[in-house]
Amino acid sequence: MFEAGLRQAQARIEAGFDAWHARAPHLPVTEAMRYAVRGGKRLRGYLALESARLHGIDDALNPALAIEAIHAYSLVHDDLPCMDDDDLRRGQPTVHRQWDEATAVLVGDALQALGFELCLTPATHEDAGVRADLALSLARAAGAEGMVLGQALDIAAESAAAPLTLEEITALQAGKTGALIVWPAEAGARLAGADPAPMRAYAAALGLAFQIADDILDVEGDAAAMGKAAGKDAARGKATFVSHLGLDGAKLRAAELVDSACDALSPYGEDARGLIDAARFVIARET
Amino acid sequence: MFEAGLRQAQARIEAGFDAWHARAPHLPVTEAMRYAVRGGKRLRGYLALESARLHGIDDALNPALAIEAIHAYSLVHDDLPCMDDDDLRRGQPTVHRQWDEATAVLVGDALQALGFELCLTPATHEDAGVRADLALSLARAAGAEGMVLGQALDIAAESAAAPLTLEEITALQAGKTGALIVWPAEAGARLAGADPAPMRAYAAALGLAFQIADDILDVEGDAAAMGKAAGKDAARGKATFVSHLGLDGAKLRAAELVDSACDALSPYGEDARGLIDAARFVIARET
Repeated sequence: MFEAGLRQAQARIEAGFDAWHARAPHLPVTEAMRYAVRGGKRLRGYLALESARLHGIDDALNPALAIEAIHAYSLVHDDLPCMDDDDLRRGQPTVHRQWDEATAVLVGDALQALGFELCLTPATHEDAGVRADLALSLARAAGAEGMVLGQALDIAAESAAAPLTLEEITALQAGKTGALIVWPAEAGARLAGADPAPMRAYAAALGLAFQIADDILDVEGDAAAMGKAAGKDAARGKATFVSHLGLDGAKLRAAELVDSACDALSPYGEDARGLIDAARFVIARET
Repeated sequence: MFEAGLRQAQARIEAGFDAWHARAPHLPVTEAMRYAVRGGKRLRGYLALESARLHGIDDALNPALAIEAIHAYSLVHDDLPCMDDDDLRRGQPTVHRQWDEATAVLVGDALQALGFELCLTPATHEDAGVRADLALSLARAAGAEGMVLGQALDIAAESAAAPLTLEEITALQAGKTGALIVWPAEAGARLAGADPAPMRAYAAALGLAFQIADDILDVEGDAAAMGKAAGKDAARGKATFVSHLGLDGAKLRAAELVDSACDALSPYGEDARGLIDAARFVIARET
């Protein structure tokens, strides 16, 4: 059920970006923006669409596009030579390899602005209060107390005297990965004016499981299948969930988190089957 | 009158960023954000405060901080080695010189998110529709059809076969500089639910005059007074308003634009004296 839902979400999101691209001015920077948002698993966009459906909202395409634009911006900047210095992303050259660094900086900057624009445009919801709430929560999730905080902690860790503790890695990942997974999961509740707490609990556990799965993939994964380099963390001597818990311990912890994510969905009953399957998928994925 | 108003705006804006900094988590990235938003003329913040006053709104500090945060983000990214590669900004080392490039990328990213957060936080205005309108217009002014568009056209011009025409420079500057000058000028009207058209006409002319004055300063200015390098445009053989119009022609054009900016304020009568003085200041400034 999840895989069909994910494929449907992927198709809607690609079509949504095509429609945006057709409206946008045709310039190198908008071409590079379209390139940067192409492909990817669309897990975050799926979470926005599925959490909306769960709350009786049919049209959540703009919030789904918004979170995918913000996610893509974070990847484009994270791939820069001064950050992770990656040549490949989703199996394609990164934006600064395909164009240049200046274009990559601007593409990320413009995608961040686009994420807010997509939340705030009147078509997203008839109630301006809901649009403002979506965008404010996105600003907090993306900014210096959310994703950027996690990125900054990650950079600080590289020059720290001692490897990060498990608690420190957990806090880092809650910002770096978690905040932008929690936001789309909550978005459906926000669109419906419902309490976002169950979705937040689900997504916080899911986000951490997702990051642990990433650390496991970095050890066990196949670079060709992932479309990016593998084994980078160990080569850098970086503290990860795997270096702290061991491979088996990390797998166990991820499975526990997925159980806890699914428990949080109990108020929604059988209707949350897609999101439950999504959580199981996260720790079974190979890319 | 303008200079007293500007000094008052500068003091309120510094105090506002101090209050933000006191609430923010104390981390290298937030320290660097505070550094990046320090100093500067605060013309954009002044425009927000003064246009609000003109429309009967006393408290427009958050929009003023928002535009200064967005302006600072654009400078931090513009100073990066892959962009303009500047070592000095406002007489101090640029963020990537004081810290490093990765920090500068993240500081800019976080300041952009902060700009939206400051528009959208409930304290900014009691009406969520006004908050959403402020933030949506800011997203458009900052993004791929506003400031980033201007930046991208600027980069494209460097590798273009022929120097830009006057029309092309004008379009470039309307995005690169103009959009983030128009936004704060309109913000007061938006906060009051008034028609922003006169303020838009004022600020569009002001923004272009400001950029022409910048080009003139690049030729005539004193690097020590400006806190940044002078003569860079000519050294690069870059097309500017001065290279097209000559020094006297550029000064004449700036003066005409200032007249036209002031004419646009006629609906406000004598109450607009501060903004009229601001426009005259722009072409008389030495830094």
